This record gives sequence, C-alpha cells and structure tokens, in this order.
Amino acid sequence: MNKKHVAAYGEIMMRLEAPNHLLLRQSENLNFSFTGTGVNVTGLLAQFGYDSSLISAVPNNSIGTAAIGAIRKLGIRSEFIIKNNDNLGMYFLEKGFGPRASIVTYANRQQSSFNTTDISQYNLLQKLENVDVLHICGITLAMNSLTRENVLSLVKLAKTQGIKIVFDCNFRPSLWGDNGNINAKPFYETILAESDIVIMSEKDAMLTLGLQTTELTQEGQLESLLPVVADKYNINTIAGTIRTIRGSNHNVIKGYLYSENEMYYSKSFDVDILDRIGTGDAYTCGVIHGTLSNMNHQDTVNFSTASCILAHTISGDTPLFDTDDIIKIINEEKNDIER
Amino acid sequence: MNKKHVAAYGEIMMRLEAPNHLLLRQSENLNFSFTGTGVNVTGLLAQFGYDSSLISAVPNNSIGTAAIGAIRKLGIRSEFIIKNNDNLGMYFLEKGFGPRASIVTYANRQQSSFNTTDISQYNLLQKLENVDVLHICGITLAMNSLTRENVLSLVKLAKTQGIKIVFDCNFRPSLWGDNGNINAKPFYETILAESDIVIMSEKDAMLTLGLQTTELTQEGQLESLLPVVADKYNINTIAGTIRTIRGSNHNVIKGYLYSENEMYYSKSFDVDILDRIGTGDAYTCGVIHGTLSNMNHQDTVNFSTASCILAHTISGDTPLFDTDDIIKIINEEKNDIER
Amino acid sequence: MNKKHVAAYGEIMMRLEAPNHLLLRQSENLNFSFTGTGVNVTGLLAQFGYDSSLISAVPNNSIGTAAIGAIRKLGIRSEFIIKNNDNLGMYFLEKGFGPRASIVTYANRQQSSFNTTDISQYNLLQKLENVDVLHICGITLAMNSLTRENVLSLVKLAKTQGIKIVFDCNFRPSLWGDNGNINAKPFYETILAESDIVIMSEKDAMLTLGLQTTELTQEGQLESLLPVVADKYNINTIAGTIRTIRGSNHNVIKGYLYSENEMYYSKSFDVDILDRIGTGDAYTCGVIHGTLSNMNHQDTVNFSTASCILAHTISGDTPLFDTDDIIKIINEEKNDIER
Amino acid sequence: MNKKHVAAYGEIMMRLEAPNHLLLRQSENLNFSFTGTGVNVTGLLAQFGYDSSLISAVPNNSIGTAAIGAIRKLGIRSEFIIKNNDNLGMYFLEKGFGPRASIVTYANRQQSSFNTTDISQYNLLQKLENVDVLHICGITLAMNSLTRENVLSLVKLAKTQGIKIVFDCNFRPSLWGDNGNINAKPFYETILAESDIVIMSEKDAMLTLGLQTTELTQEGQLESLLPVVADKYNINTIAGTIRTIRGSNHNVIKGYLYSENEMYYSKSFDVDILDRIGTGDAYTCGVIHGTLSNMNHQDTVNFSTASCILAHTISGDTPLFDTDDIIKIINEEKNDIER
Amino acid sequence: MNKKHVAAYGEIMMRLEAPNHLLLRQSENLNFSFTGTGVNVTGLLAQFGYDSSLISAVPNNSIGTAAIGAIRKLGIRSEFIIKNNDNLGMYFLEKGFGPRASIVTYANRQQSSFNTTDISQYNLLQKLENVDVLHICGITLAMNSLTRENVLSLVKLAKTQGIKIVFDCNFRPSLWGDNGNINAKPFYETILAESDIVIMSEKDAMLTLGLQTTELTQEGQLESLLPVVADKYNINTIAGTIRTIRGSNHNVIKGYLYSENEMYYSKSFDVDILDRIGTGDAYTCGVIHGTLSNMNHQDTVNFSTASCILAHTISGDTPLFDTDDIIKIINEEKNDIER
Amino acid sequence: MNKKHVAAYGEIMMRLEAPNHLLLRQSENLNFSFTGTGVNVTGLLAQFGYDSSLISAVPNNSIGTAAIGAIRKLGIRSEFIIKNNDNLGMYFLEKGFGPRASIVTYANRQQSSFNTTDISQYNLLQKLENVDVLHICGITLAMNSLTRENVLSLVKLAKTQGIKIVFDCNFRPSLWGDNGNINAKPFYETILAESDIVIMSEKDAMLTLGLQTTELTQEGQLESLLPVVADKYNINTIAGTIRTIRGSNHNVIKGYLYSENEMYYSKSFDVDILDRIGTGDAYTCGVIHGTLSNMNHQDTVNFSTASCILAHTISGDTPLFDTDDIIKIINEEKNDIER
Repeated sequence: MNKKHVAAYGEIMMRLEAPNHLLLRQSENLNFSFTGTGVNVTGLLAQFGYDSSLISAVPNNSIGTAAIGAIRKLGIRSEFIIKNNDNLGMYFLEKGFGPRASIVTYANRQQSSFNTTDISQYNLLQKLENVDVLHICGITLAMNSLTRENVLSLVKLAKTQGIKIVFDCNFRPSLWGDNGNINAKPFYETILAESDIVIMSEKDAMLTLGLQTTELTQEGQLESLLPVVADKYNINTIAGTIRTIRGSNHNVIKGYLYSENEMYYSKSFDVDILDRIGTGDAYTCGVIHGTLSNMNHQDTVNFSTASCILAHTISGDTPLFDTDDIIKIINEEKNDIER
Repeated sequence: MNKKHVAAYGEIMMRLEAPNHLLLRQSENLNFSFTGTGVNVTGLLAQFGYDSSLISAVPNNSIGTAAIGAIRKLGIRSEFIIKNNDNLGMYFLEKGFGPRASIVTYANRQQSSFNTTDISQYNLLQKLENVDVLHICGITLAMNSLTRENVLSLVKLAKTQGIKIVFDCNFRPSLWGDNGNINAKPFYETILAESDIVIMSEKDAMLTLGLQTTELTQEGQLESLLPVVADKYNINTIAGTIRTIRGSNHNVIKGYLYSENEMYYSKSFDVDILDRIGTGDAYTCGVIHGTLSNMNHQDTVNFSTASCILAHTISGDTPLFDTDDIIKIINEEKNDIER
Repeated sequence: MNKKHVAAYGEIMMRLEAPNHLLLRQSENLNFSFTGTGVNVTGLLAQFGYDSSLISAVPNNSIGTAAIGAIRKLGIRSEFIIKNNDNLGMYFLEKGFGPRASIVTYANRQQSSFNTTDISQYNLLQKLENVDVLHICGITLAMNSLTRENVLSLVKLAKTQGIKIVFDCNFRPSLWGDNGNINAKPFYETILAESDIVIMSEKDAMLTLGLQTTELTQEGQLESLLPVVADKYNINTIAGTIRTIRGSNHNVIKGYLYSENEMYYSKSFDVDILDRIGTGDAYTCGVIHGTLSNMNHQDTVNFSTASCILAHTISGDTPLFDTDDIIKIINEEKNDIER
Repeated sequence: MNKKHVAAYGEIMMRLEAPNHLLLRQSENLNFSFTGTGVNVTGLLAQFGYDSSLISAVPNNSIGTAAIGAIRKLGIRSEFIIKNNDNLGMYFLEKGFGPRASIVTYANRQQSSFNTTDISQYNLLQKLENVDVLHICGITLAMNSLTRENVLSLVKLAKTQGIKIVFDCNFRPSLWGDNGNINAKPFYETILAESDIVIMSEKDAMLTLGLQTTELTQEGQLESLLPVVADKYNINTIAGTIRTIRGSNHNVIKGYLYSENEMYYSKSFDVDILDRIGTGDAYTCGVIHGTLSNMNHQDTVNFSTASCILAHTISGDTPLFDTDDIIKIINEEKNDIER
Repeated sequence: MNKKHVAAYGEIMMRLEAPNHLLLRQSENLNFSFTGTGVNVTGLLAQFGYDSSLISAVPNNSIGTAAIGAIRKLGIRSEFIIKNNDNLGMYFLEKGFGPRASIVTYANRQQSSFNTTDISQYNLLQKLENVDVLHICGITLAMNSLTRENVLSLVKLAKTQGIKIVFDCNFRPSLWGDNGNINAKPFYETILAESDIVIMSEKDAMLTLGLQTTELTQEGQLESLLPVVADKYNINTIAGTIRTIRGSNHNVIKGYLYSENEMYYSKSFDVDILDRIGTGDAYTCGVIHGTLSNMNHQDTVNFSTASCILAHTISGDTPLFDTDDIIKIINEEKNDIER
Repeated sequence: MNKKHVAAYGEIMMRLEAPNHLLLRQSENLNFSFTGTGVNVTGLLAQFGYDSSLISAVPNNSIGTAAIGAIRKLGIRSEFIIKNNDNLGMYFLEKGFGPRASIVTYANRQQSSFNTTDISQYNLLQKLENVDVLHICGITLAMNSLTRENVLSLVKLAKTQGIKIVFDCNFRPSLWGDNGNINAKPFYETILAESDIVIMSEKDAMLTLGLQTTELTQEGQLESLLPVVADKYNINTIAGTIRTIRGSNHNVIKGYLYSENEMYYSKSFDVDILDRIGTGDAYTCGVIHGTLSNMNHQDTVNFSTASCILAHTISGDTPLFDTDDIIKIINEEKNDIER
C-alpha cells in the first residue's frame, strides 16, 4: 500500500461529560475522552484508510499517557506526539435537550502542553517528509502568540516540502478578545494564502477578513463572499455547512463547496442528534477524502455532508465509521438491524 | 440585598428511579434524589434569587441527614426543617416511553415524618416573621387529619403575620377515597378564602368545589369556572396549564392565568420531554416570580409557561435554571452549543 | 385455574449490549440478558397468564445457571431446560441511532448447548402431555442438520399428542448459505404442513417455498401469496407485520392476519423505538392469545399489532407487559403519569 | 426424584444498598435486591437440591412483581406467594469499613403486605401437604399481633400435618419495645415447644426465656443454658454461631450444635467479609441439610459453619453456592483460579 | 444555641477519581467531588455541631455553581464564598493498592479563582464579626505572592477582631521551588507568631524554620523541636500525627499534642484504609473541638487521633461522622451491624 | 533509538468480568477488555520501552476492530495483526473473595480467528526481519493441530532469522484431554530445544516431559528437575514463580531462575491481590528485560518477582507500569500519596 499520509497540528483535549443529559451540579461522575479538531480529523481519516498522524504535545504525567493511548486506539500514529510540561486542556460538557442548549466550559487551556510548546520541540523537519496533507485549525491561531507563531512556522515548513494545507477557519470571537477580528486578520490572511482547502462560513469571511455583503440569506452571503476569498488567496476549495438549529436534539444541515468558480450544495438533511460536537470535523474529512480520491465536486459535497450527518449519530466528538457507512447515507438505505 | 423570602410547607420525598427507561423488574439499581412540590418550588425560587425555606420534617436517621443535605445543595435554607420520627415518604418511578406511560408507586407515605409531625413542633411563630410568601399544596391536605389540621393552623398563623398564601390545589381523587370530593370541599374552601395565588385546573374546580359547567373544551370550562372561584373566594390570581398528552416523551402545553376579571393565555408549546415530574411546580414559580416582580399578567403567563417548558428538559423533579434561561425560551433563541 | 400451557423449543442466547448507543470499540462494559425467540414468546405469554415452558439446553457452568435463573425470573417454567455441553450462543448488540442501523454480531452459536443437544436428551414424551401449544422458530431450522432433525422429531411427537403448532418462518438467507432456499424448502414444507398458526412474510413465502407474484406492494404480494400457502399446507392462520424503516428510532408498522379466506389488517402505527429486537415475538404472542381466547380475527390482528407496538417501548428483547397494557394502546389512551 | 420440600414463612424485603462503602448522603444511586431470612434459607436450600417454597405476601404493584421474579430467579417456588395490599418492607444498607460499623435503616415495615396479611389468605391447608420442613423466624414474631397470631396458627397447622419446624429465635430487643422480653416469652415458649431444630444464642435464651447463668464465656453460657432449653421444650437440635467482631471486614466465627445431650463445636475461622448479612441463614441451611441428609452431629456443625463462612464471600444477603463449594471450605482447599 | 463559629480560608478543588483502583489510562469515567483542606475542616466541624463557613472563590460558571451546592450539602455556610474569574483547581486521583502508591495529578491550580482573587474582594470586615476561629493552611501560602499577601492580610484582620488562628503548616517543598524553605521561612514565622493552634510535623519545623536536632526517631525530633517552636512563637498547642506507611491500604498512626510544656501521645492504631486523603484534616478538627470544648490535653489527642482513624474509613476527602462515632472508636466498641 | 523488538504469537481474548466480586448470576453487566498472554507480555514490554508487536488474528467485525484498538492503546504495534474469520475467544471471570476461588469460564475458543488461521496468512517472512525476540505460549500449543503446526512453523522460521525464543510452558492438563501429557511431550520437546528462555514450573517439567523426582518441596523439585531440562534442551534460562495460595485476595510469591548451572531465588512476598490474572506474564517480562538489558541473574529474578508482585495491584490482565515502579518495589519504598 502506498497510502496518503495526513497530519494535523492540534490540541488534544480531555472532554468531561456529565452523563444522561445531567447538569454538572446534578452529577457525581463524568465520562471522559480525548478529543480535539485534529484528533477528530486524523481519527476519521485513519478509518477511511489513510495514514494519519497528530502533531501535538501532552503533559508528562498519567493524563498524558492516557491521552496517547486514546489517540493510538483511534488508529492515529503517535510518533509526532511529545510529552512536555504539565497540563492538558479540558472541557466540561453539559448536554442540552430540546430548547435547552448544550454548555461547554473550558478549563486549563492557556497552560496546556500544546499551547505552551514551541514548534521547534517537535523536530518536524524529517518527520514531515512523508506527509501529504497538513490540517490546521483556526482555534490554535486564537490561543496565544506562541501558538500563532507555531502555526506560521509550521505552514511555512510544510509548504517548502510540498505539503497541501487544509485550514479550518473556525473563528471564535470570544477567544480573540476586543478588536479580535482586527488582530486576527493578518494571521488568517497569511494562512489562507498558503491553503489548498479551506473550511469557511460566511461569518468567518466577514469577521476575519472584514468582507461585507448586502445579501441576507446564508446562501446569498456565501455565494457573494466565497468567490472573492478564493480568488484573492488563490484557494482551490472552500467548503462548509449551513446549520439551522431546531433544538439541541434536532438540526437541519446542508453542505456547500465552492471550487473552480462554481458553488455546489448537498440536499438538506433533518438530523436527530446523539452528539453534535465534532460533526464539522467529519465534514472536513469528507472534503479531504473527496479531494485526495479525485471525486467530482458534487460527489464531494454529498459525501462530506453525509459524513457530517452520520457523525451526529455517534457518541463522543470523534466520528467512528467507514466510507461504506457514508455511502449508505448517500443512498438513503434505511436498514433494519444489520446481522 | 433585601430579598423576598418564600417558604413552603411540604413533604420531602425520596424519588427512586429505575434508570434508562427500565422497569423495576428489569433493574438492579435505582437513582435517588429528594423532591416534593415544596422542594421544587423553593429550589427554583432560590435560583431565581429569592431567599427560600422549606418547612418540613425528616426522619432522625441517615436518610433524614441525606435529605437535608440535598435540600441545602439546592440553595434552600434548612432552618425550618426538623428531624422527627422514623420515616421518609418515597416513590418509585418507572419512566415511560412513547405510548407507555410512566408509573409512580408510592411507599411509606402515611408514616412519614412530615405526615406525622404536629405543626407546633416546628416552633414557627418567630421564624415566619421574615417570610413574605407561603406555599401550600393540596396533596398535604389529602394525607390525613393531622396534616389537614396542620395546614389550617399554618395558614391562619401566616395570615396573622401578613404573609401571602400560594395554594396549589393539586386534587388527587385517589388520595381522598370514597366521597373524597365531599370531604375535601370544606378544607379547600377554607384555604382558598385565604389564598392570594391559586394553581387550579378546571377539574380541581369541579371536583373540590362541586362547580359545574356546560362548556366542553378545557378553555371554555376554565373561562366559565375560574371567574366564579376568584370572585367567591376573593382570589387575586388563578393560574395553571392545559396539557395534551401525545405520549410519554411528547406533550403540548399552554399556560393560562386569570386575574382582575381577565383570562390570559400563553402560546402553545410542543414539548419533547426528558423528565415530566415537577414541571407544574416550575409553572407555579413563574407565577410567584411574576407577581413578586410586578410583571404584567401576559408577561407572567408567558414567563411561567416558558419556565414549565424548560423544566421538561431537566432530569429529576426539581427545575434547575435561572430566569435568564427562561427568557431565552420566551425569545425562541435556538442556540447551538454555548461555550 | 385450568390454564393453557404453551411450550417453545428455542435457543437461549446471551445478549451483550453496548450501553447508551455506544459502539463496541467505544465501550468498556456491556449490559447482558438472556433472550431468544422462544424466551420472548413464553415470557410474554406467562405475563398474559398462561403456563409457559421453554424446551432448551444450556451449558453446565455458571453461564447456564445464570440463564436458567433469568428464564425463571420471567415467569417461565424451567422443568424442560437441561444442562448439557459447554457453550451458550451469544450476540453483541450495538444500538443504532437515526440513520445509523443497529448491528448484531453473533458468537459461539454453532457450538451452543442448544444447537448440539439431541432432542432425545430432553425426555419429552411425558413432559409434553399437558402442553397445548408448541412454538417453533425457523432460525432453529437453519442452524445445522442436528437441529433440523430435532425440529422434525419434535413436531411429529407433538402432533401425536394433539398439540397445536405455531411456526415462525423467520427465514434468514445468510444462515442457509448458497442455494439456501433450495435446501430450506423441504424442511419448511414439512413443518408448514403440520402448523396451525404461521408467522410468515411475503419474503418468507417467496424465498423458502419459491412462490412468485407479479404484485409490487407488500400488501399485494401478501394477498396473492398467503392464500396459496394457507390452502396448500392447510394452515388455519398466517400472520405478520409490514414494517417500514424510517430510521433506527422510528418505524411504521401495520399488522396483517389471513384466516378463513380473509385478510385482516390493523391500522398503521408510527413507532418511536426504545428497543426493536423481540418486537416480532410480541406480535406472535398476540396471535397465539387471540386464537386461544377465541378473539375474532380483526380483534386478534389489532391486539397483536398493539402488542408489537408496545414491545418497542420496553428495553431488552423480552416484552414485559400485561394484556391490560395492550388494551390501552388499542384504545389510544394517552396517559400522563400513572400513580 | 423424591426431593424433600422445605417451606419458609417470612417477609420479602427490598434491600437498598449504597454502593462502594458510601454513606447514603454520599451516594446518588442504590443497588437493590429482594431478601429476608426466609428468602435466604429457601434460596440456599434450592441450590442444595431441595424443593423450596416461600410463604409470603407482596404488594399488588410493580414492586411486588419484581419481588416475585427475584424469588423465582433464586430457584425458589413461587406458588405460595400472594399479592395483597400495597407495601413491601425495605431496608437501606450503608456498608461499614474497618472500625466503622454497617448501618441498616428500616422503612415501611409495619405496613408491609407480609405484616398485614392474615395467614388464612394463603389457603395453605392443601398446599402444605407435600411440605416436609417449615422455617419460622423470630423477627416475624416481633412485628405485630397479627403476625404473632399468624405464626401460631401456621405452626399449629404444620404440626397437624407432621411437618418439622425449624425456628430461628433471632430476638431483637428493639423490635419488642419496653418489657419486650416479658411480652415475647409466651410466644417463644409456644413455638419452641413445637420445634425440632432451633437456632438460638445464649442471649436469646436469657432474654426470651429469662434463663440465667453464672458462666462468663459464651461457650460456658451456651453449655449451661442450651441443655436446659432442649430438655424443657423437647428440642432435638439447638445450634448457632459464636461471632467475634474484629471490624466490619473481619470477624472470627465458630459454630456450635447441641443435640442428644452433647455439645459439638466447629473450629474457629478468621473471616474476611465481603457481605455479612444473611450469613447466619447460611448456617441454618447447613443444620437443616445435615439433619435431612443424616449427617452426624460433628459433620453437621462443620458443614454449617463452612456454609456460614462461605456466605461472607458472596455479595448480597442470599448465599449462592452448592454443597460442593462448602466441602472445599471444610477440606481447606485453597484454589488458584478455577478454569 | 450560641454555637461557636469556625471559618476557614481555603481553596475548593474538584477531585476527579478513577473508580475501582483503576489507572486513568484504564478508565473512561471519573467520580468527582469538591474538596480541599478548608472544606474538610469546616465540613467536619459542621457535623460536630459548629457553625462553619468557608472563605473561598469559585468560577462564575456551572462548575462554580456545582461547587457551592456541594459545600452547602456538607452543612457549611456559603455566605463567604464569591464567584470570581473562570477556573477551579482540580486534582486527578489514581488510588493505589498494596505496594502501589496513590497518585495525585494537579491541574489548573495557579489560575484558579481562589488563587487569583484578592482578599479585599470578599468584603470580610463585617462578616468576620461573629467568627470565633479562623483556619489557615500552609498550602495557600505556597501558591503565589497574591495568596501569600492574602493570608497575611487576613490573619492581621482576624487578630484585630480577637479571632483565634489555627494554622496547618502543611509544607510542600515541591510547591516552593528551589530554596523554597528560605523563601517560606518569613511567611511561616509571621503566621506562627499569630497562631493559637498549629498543626506541625518535625519535618515542617526543620524545613520551614530551619531548626535542627540530633534526635533520630520521629518522637525524639518532635520532643526536641516543638517546645522550641511553641516557646519562640508563643503557641498554645502544636499537634499532628506520626504515620508509618505499610502500603496504600494499611498505615500505622499515632497522634501527638504539645501544650503547656508537655507532650501527649495517643496509642498507635493499625488502620485499614478506604480513603486516605483528608484524614489529617479530621485530626485538626479533633484538636479544634478539644480546645473549644475544654477537653484536657490527653483526651484531645485521643479524640483527634480517633477522628483521624475513622476518617480513613470514609470514601472521599471530607470526613463524615459525628462526635458520637468518634467516641465509639475511642472506646474500641466493635459493633456488628447497627440496626 | 535502536530499540529491541519483541514479538509475541498469541491469541487476543475478550475478558468479560462480573463487577464487584459478583457472580454471573448476580450481575446484569460485564466489564470487558482484550487480553491474552501475548497481549500482556508485549503490552508490558512496550511500557518498558521496547518495540513490541503481536502476531494474531481477530474477526473481521466490530469485535475485531475493538480488539485492535485496545492493543494499540497499550502501545503495542498492530502491523502483524490480521482480520480473518468470525470469532474471538472469550472468557468470563467471576472474581473470588477470601476462600472462594475465582472462576474462569471459556467460550468460543476453538472457533476463534486465531485458532483457525494458518500461520502462512500472516506473511511473516519479511515482517520478522527486525524482530529480536519471539514469545510463544504453551496454551497455543494445546489448542488444536493447526495451532500446533503454526507454532512449529513459526519457531522454525524465527530460528532461521536468528530470533531468540521465549517459551512459556503453561501446561494445562484440561486442554490436552486424556493422555494429554503423552500427546504434548513431542511438541514441548521440539520447542524447548529451540528456546533460549523458558518459563517452567516443576509440574510442567513432570507433566510434559515425564520427568520424576523424589523431592517433596517445590524448591527441591525445581532444583532437581530444572538442571536436567536446561541441560538436555540446551536452554539458557529457566524461570518461574512459587505461589502459595492463602485465599483469593492473598498469595505468597517467590521467584526462581536457573541459569548457567545455578539456581537464584528472590525473597518471598506476601501479596494482597487486586487482580491475579496476567501476573505470571509480568514475571516473564522481567526475565526478558533482565536478559536483554544484561542484568545479572540475581538482579533479574529480583526484578521479575517485583514486576509480578506489582502486577497483582493492577486491575485487568495486562500489567501497566514502568521499570521505575518496579524499582520502588525492589527497594521497598513505601510511599504515601505521590503528588
């Protein structure tokens, strides 16, 4: 096999979830798992059959050991993970129900090993040699000046080695503080200019790049903004999902993908939700897989959206299914029990 | 702060729930919590920012100790709770699903500390001095002659101190036995005559007071009966909900409130149900809060109904949310994950 | 009481279920129970008030001991169960959600005590004397040549004692291998010729008997095929359900029953699903109860379908409710909490 | 097989245990099971190979249904159990650790179905025909005047049918109230006079019969008192255990048995304790089995003590093992893993 | 009642424990509780019958809300707790077994609300008016310069109001870094000079104050050092425990107390351990209670040691028992089940 | 790093454990994990810092996927694991307590993927190139003629590549049937002749090779037999443990190692047991590590025994600790909590 190798540079977080839709104040125990955008993306791509690696740092204690074990269990290669410093980012999840929204409370994030480790400590020069695709997330960019420098260095290094860049904008205003969009813009522009595939919403476009549009619908805004972005930063593919919230257990989702001057949409799906977190990453994996396997654009958006839909039916952040399972969703196979 | 102080006189019960929609015969363990109408009302009002106290008795053993701890955890003040006798009322809950109804099986109730403790043992004379509102529940009235006398004494004492009375009719025919409505009527009449806010359904009006109407719809019956009741007993506000059962996981709910010769309705809500028990108490809290904070009547019924709706999304009897969370329901904010 | 006695000849399996819709790879513990078509049928009939027995073999170890305890707990008589050999059939269940289908993975089945025990070891000659009805399942027929011979011997013995035969076709192509339908046909024909009540779908009719029809709808196919089968094999009643899959949590179900030259249908039910497995057995019990209690055919199909619907709301394979609970479904009683 | 049939007249209680040595106030869930002296005795004897039945009443609700299922699961016959009234006795268990003692809190006991059901409602006249041994517990005697009358009637009825009586004195001073021993004496005397096997400690002898001794050691007191009791009431066998408490997890135990003018002792065992409750009942079963199988007295006391020791290693009240397992304890077989 | 009021200034931490002696890498869920030296001390004193309050800060999110509920559940008053900033200190516990030691991994501590909140934000001036005793822990002193200033200010304020100071030295070299003892000394000296009761080991004396001794045994070192400390800083009572580690489940413990020129020892206890953390705080509570209730010194050291011993039998950090339970330990009552 | 690479050829089994010392018949859920001698050995060696691989086959279904994830989580390389056929071996564990022995019940073993897969399907020729040590277990030899052939072929192949062989005799009479020792002997002799390190007890020597001795103590027998074996089959090192069973929670253990004509013993350890299974494999890892790291023989036996002791304190089969943790045991460091 000569499998493509996708690496992601991203934080491993501990997710601590109150069980059975309980609030933290109602519960006495928490289910935990190790997660993060990079984990989700490389985890699902490993199941799609790719070599996948995570570039990350975990604390040099039993939490770090547990994190590495969890990453390996997902089929992700662990050679690029180092142990450094003492903390792992965490988030507590109180799952919503109906009109009650889910609540995520972060802890320990600025001090995390990942967010305090200089990119040079990974010794990536040689390791990246057999990597084909590198995934970067906008949240890493938001953390602090070290992580921002890390991302810039890494992207630069990757480009010198001919690695394709996938960039998930994921702009979170709360993380950038006052005038965040002004601070963020130069970083976003630098990364976008190096990216081949970008996950971007109309809000990302407006808030990070300061673009404007008179359109009122999400579709209209995307159709007016994405061509401008693709053109300006010379991006091959920009994609994402339009999500309408009906409640914590029910969303409506439609995928879009802009490439070669054309906008492609999937159909709309009514989705019953078991676990919403990480479903966007399943969409990203669809776009990466579509691109690496030379699907046409319409097939790619269909595949990515189905991947996203299916991810809502899996407990935990990290999507766990094969491409075959996605095909069944595309074909609308409604199966009774599979024996 | 000069917070209003709401007290409730009510039984603390142990709720023992078979997990995961199992039947008792299928399960080997039970989740338990401490609950009751008074607990629910004072628990939610504590979260709304009120001082709140429970007047209750628990057994002088480790169950009683656990009960007091649970009450305190909810933010309710425990100074009015005494330890007396040996039993705590209990109920077992087998949660229904779809067309299968939930089943509640009571145990140990007539012998409970609350139902066997004379009101004089609480030494309430001084304690009530700084209480503004007293909540009473019709179920207490139904228990036995001691509890009936207790309620009458307490209401009398409260009125001498200028405390507002909130009375939740909650007529349960099965608890009053044969000719129960005839037995109940004088007690209900006495309490109603002292009450400022009453939670009453059209069935309560007909069964406890023997009122009659030719109307066939619930709205029609309420509109013909509540004015009569309000007038006769000089009650400021009578309120409640109209609940249509679609199944154990799905109800349709609409709030009503009658005051100053006018009937007010909320809109109808389709509700997906996580836990139905105690949702009526969330409605009551809305009415109390609306009154104490001088909302207009339409706002009060909207607020109370939203409180009731939100209570269906919280596991356990006792509603756990702030007034801000209710406002989001009123405004139909549909939030994705709150971070 | 002179209760009718229904016996079933069927395998007891251990069901091992990943909790909370998790995949096996996500979980570290499994809920287990003892189940099987015969268990489900005799378990529910015991609750309907019948004497019921299971003819089965379990391993002579602690798994077998646990299995017998579980059978007895359901109210099934255990006198016909023997301990023999070392294995119990098992299946792992990963419950689906929405568009993700449930997955059943079998283990240890060909070696199971039931599938390796000769019918003679049960010493049934005397034991069957007070049995009125015998239930047989097509899956037993599919296992191996020993189980096929066992079924044939048992049916022959039962008929000599005037016992009514209920045969659930349950044809599973995967279990019969290549040309399975050709291999299966003679066995199915022999059993059908001895059966009084048959559970059969249009697919069973086509795949096991090689019948054909030009009809395209399920109703059309059933209406063209069942009369042919009933006539040829002289079967009193043929019944079953038409199930439309909307997703793992939502099916549409309609019962049918053919008897005395007439086809009867229940109305269609939209079903929210807690646990789908074993719901067909609840339907079978309805048909057996309808027949033994002399319901008319329309009432029988209504009762059987309601039994099937209600079974979807009970966790685990084995339906757990009384005939009263079914009547409530038929009458569309929508109950709030039952206290 | 012509198996001996042992029946017990005793209450079924729900045991609700806080898990993992937690206190009630620390826990949010409880493991529950159905238990009681009669359950334990008939449950273990069923495993020894006897026919065994429980004469008991459970509430006519889902708790009663669960209780009967649990009894049947233990292999006990359920024909003598009736559904009557609304309550089941319960006890909460907070397991001790080291110097911290276990705490048992009873609930709902006086109102329980068993303690409010007249013996006539069981229609035992015919049912007792094939019973060989009847087990009675002193706790039933302590409950109320109805249960006392029930025991007297039942013992009388049993004796007319030639049934052997096993009586476990189990005198609990707290249950008999002030001057309890004076009230208890006539009842104890009446039952003892009809008993063949009696479980009695030196304290039972002194407190219920008012006997006195100048001996200071437990052995000395037993040796001076038991002959007097055996003689006066014409009892074949009196037996019991001497238990020295080292802590909640560690006791020292030695069995004794007095019969035919001779005292027999087992050796002393140091016992690590997993679950202490019900271990006395395992001793009783040993004495019954020794008697019914004609063991000599020394073998009986050895067997009974080993049964008691082994019961400490089984979670829950009801002992779960075979006579073979007891033999291994007697032989001091120390096995590594049994495969 | 005119109960004494004890306040503690201390961090509330979230304890996250892998269940059943598992390692973090083996588990998928964690039991959590809210704890800390101040919590443990005020929690146990509340059970002894004192008014007790915690001076602490928790994050203004759902973790903080849960923490306050947990504190209140313990019977501690919550008026002195404020919500400020975003983090709560946490520690992960992997419980040891036999020769394998327990491992505690801290997280999120420097950023915690408590360790980043200026003492002025508590507005303590008036609140301290009715406080009799203030408990301070050396760990708070170790955190950072803000917490050090906070402690100094608070102690100064307390002394002006005539509040007795209890100081638990708890010197942790790892928290003070290089030359930590030199940095720590001035702070320790300042606090000691204001303290009435001090918990101090011979190591604390040597490491924080630089004292030296030629004695080799722990007793010898204590007897040579404590008089020097008591004299120099004018401390009424210095106390602590000598703990010999036999393994994670077994320690040997002996209490000591120096006061009025005399050293008092308890006897030595062999302790089986359910949960070791927080047991030192139970000792501290014994000393405080002994002092406030005017026990003589020998009784105080006996009582405190028994409190410490009993705390090892309670799961979780916070001791949960009454003074009566301690008396039983002192009297060596070995109880079988308490009913 | 130029790490040594240890491979094991061994079955992956699913361990299904009843929790909390329950019997199967008492429990409704099972904790499961993936285990086996090969898993344990390579899992622990991975933690010691070696490259380690498992040569095994798992079913081509979700159980197989879960198994591979679990292996990877342990740090074992998964390149030599293939998916083939449909079954995974399983065992159910009922953990003993005190004098009650643990019970292991196997299921599905002869049909397991590992036991039905021909060695040729692994394509090992190239893969073994960088392997230094190969671990083989006598249980594989016992399974069936295919596995016996597989072992012989593999050992032959390994020797041609200069790989050291570690052979764990692990003779289980029950698996070899009647005259098992006669059947086993030629296979054992063939493997022994190729082995460098052998784990062998005195019973293995007598039962598989038919050796005899007049010695009565285990030490005496080992000292008379092992030299004969080592000499005859030219084995460098023969080692093992002497285990005295005091009960399910308490063993006494002493290691031995024979090499270069000399017998070495560790001291005896009293061991409190959390989980006994897999502890022998921890001993084996010690011997392999001692050999590969050139420890002297006495150090090796000390290290191996300490590894074995520590393994008893870890839940589950697979030992989880570092060489540092073992050193602490050797040095008898008794640590209080490690922070």
